[in-house]
Amino acid sequence: MSALHPAAAGIPADVEAVEEIMRRGGAGLRERMGQAEAHLEDVTARAGAPLATHATATVVAGGKRLRPLLVLLAAEAAGGVAGDPEREQSLIAAAVAVELVHSATLVHDDVLDAAALRRGRPTVVAAAGREIATATGDLLFSRAFAELARSRSAEAVRFLSDASCALAEGELLQREDAWSASVTPERYLHRCDLKTARLFQAACALGALHGTPAAVEPLGRFGRRIGLAFQLLDDVLDVSGPAERTGKHRGTDLLDGTVTLPLILARERDPEIDLRGVRTTEEAAAVCDRIAATGVLEDARSRGQDLVAEAKRGLPALPLRQREALDLAADVMVERYA
Amino acid sequence: MSALHPAAAGIPADVEAVEEIMRRGGAGLRERMGQAEAHLEDVTARAGAPLATHATATVVAGGKRLRPLLVLLAAEAAGGVAGDPEREQSLIAAAVAVELVHSATLVHDDVLDAAALRRGRPTVVAAAGREIATATGDLLFSRAFAELARSRSAEAVRFLSDASCALAEGELLQREDAWSASVTPERYLHRCDLKTARLFQAACALGALHGTPAAVEPLGRFGRRIGLAFQLLDDVLDVSGPAERTGKHRGTDLLDGTVTLPLILARERDPEIDLRGVRTTEEAAAVCDRIAATGVLEDARSRGQDLVAEAKRGLPALPLRQREALDLAADVMVERYA
Repeated sequence: MSALHPAAAGIPADVEAVEEIMRRGGAGLRERMGQAEAHLEDVTARAGAPLATHATATVVAGGKRLRPLLVLLAAEAAGGVAGDPEREQSLIAAAVAVELVHSATLVHDDVLDAAALRRGRPTVVAAAGREIATATGDLLFSRAFAELARSRSAEAVRFLSDASCALAEGELLQREDAWSASVTPERYLHRCDLKTARLFQAACALGALHGTPAAVEPLGRFGRRIGLAFQLLDDVLDVSGPAERTGKHRGTDLLDGTVTLPLILARERDPEIDLRGVRTTEEAAAVCDRIAATGVLEDARSRGQDLVAEAKRGLPALPLRQREALDLAADVMVERYA
Repeated sequence: MSALHPAAAGIPADVEAVEEIMRRGGAGLRERMGQAEAHLEDVTARAGAPLATHATATVVAGGKRLRPLLVLLAAEAAGGVAGDPEREQSLIAAAVAVELVHSATLVHDDVLDAAALRRGRPTVVAAAGREIATATGDLLFSRAFAELARSRSAEAVRFLSDASCALAEGELLQREDAWSASVTPERYLHRCDLKTARLFQAACALGALHGTPAAVEPLGRFGRRIGLAFQLLDDVLDVSGPAERTGKHRGTDLLDGTVTLPLILARERDPEIDLRGVRTTEEAAAVCDRIAATGVLEDARSRGQDLVAEAKRGLPALPLRQREALDLAADVMVERYA
């Protein structure tokens, strides 16, 4: 699979979209993202060895930093923190905390999946075994809350820990539903909400907490909707590929038995589609073709697009620049298809 | 092993000592411990099924609740919260948070050890598999910080997350050092500090945060010392038994390759003591006998007792009742030998 793995930072279209947001956000946004990045490394490096090594490797392996970006954009939309060094520092800490929870979850997921690669690099579990990987995940969780404690807001801790609980529950639902033929679209959406959308919601709410209180709820809702779209469209990408763009073979989720919306919808039209017995990437690709042939990918994709449109419509009145930045962030969810 | 497992609440001598503390603490302490207990169950029951089932089973399986007790005693020693409902609620939340972190660690440890029993009941990993157990641990961690967020103190979150990071590091050190012949007493003590003492320290500091600020540091130090004694003497118990009192076969740690102080000291006197090849409980018992024959158990035990004495001596000036309660709590660490 190594020939297919993506650049550390993610799918090229995503990287471009994020770059566009940064360009428009100006020097302030770029500087804060840089601070968050540096701080992220600093936090993990401060752990005792060998945890520091693995925790640092995990966070520097990157990703798009979509969640920290949302924290910063939401803060800006809620009125900003410019000129207040203490609130600015608290904001960076919140951005770092959200990314740490996300990273912790990835590390534990990889332990459970015994995954070999993540973002094109060996996973902690592959490099160092289950013990170190489990402890690394625990450490990243703990550090996330330590960071958030710097933001001096009990509400912030509550937002993040609620999202973190939801993540654990969503992860579990997914494993419970693996290989199941009776997962409904509602249950699928509930799982995506827990597994993905709630952390996007927390990211936006944590950012907004640094501005006007009235912005917390609507910006959180915005985050939750685009988070749901993100997961939904990610699941479409798993079936549609192409692998050259996504960096992984089509049907990777299907091989794990993960029942996603395209599969659920396709089965309604072609009840003989069956995950059992699918063991090789070729067999998975064949199931992907069969799902695609039912025409459901368009349906699933348009549900995701609807969610993004709904998220944008639900935004409160904002100055043009802040609104455009959030619109662009929402578009990242769909532009992966461009 | 089932014939040996202890009552859910722990070693009888511990239970009696805790009961004595409760008796002297009066109705107020007992009521708060009851509130913490009820709240602990409530927190886990609120999770979505099936996590709720396993998280609740984990916390209701019990233990001595030594850490929540220390939170409450430290608060009392620092001036108390009586008459202030908000601070009282915050204190209960802190007591619950500390126990949740402790429980989370136990659940993850059991996953790594593939342990069958804990406190005489099937572990989550034995009952429900690695996926559910890992997610249950993550959930308990997350809920701990959600609880602490109710205590409205960023410092509280920092104390607990620092302890939680230390736990992950200590756990890892222990696994790194397994079967090693070159673990020094210093490294052993450092590991115990990370793995056990820092959470005891956090418990006392979190309690003290509810009283006068000047009490936080000395009470935290008290907690750290008795926590170290707790681990040290626990490791002596593993070698000395008797199994009828500890509820587990002698040498259980040795079978896992865990290098504890009695073994380290015994090897200095009898270099041929070797863990490798020890596979059965009978072989482990034979190594325990050989360790005991060197006379080191007395040395290790007296180091633990010294720590307890030092902890007591280091306490700040306190009213008699508060001082006696903390002295008794410190004595729990050694009275397991009574």
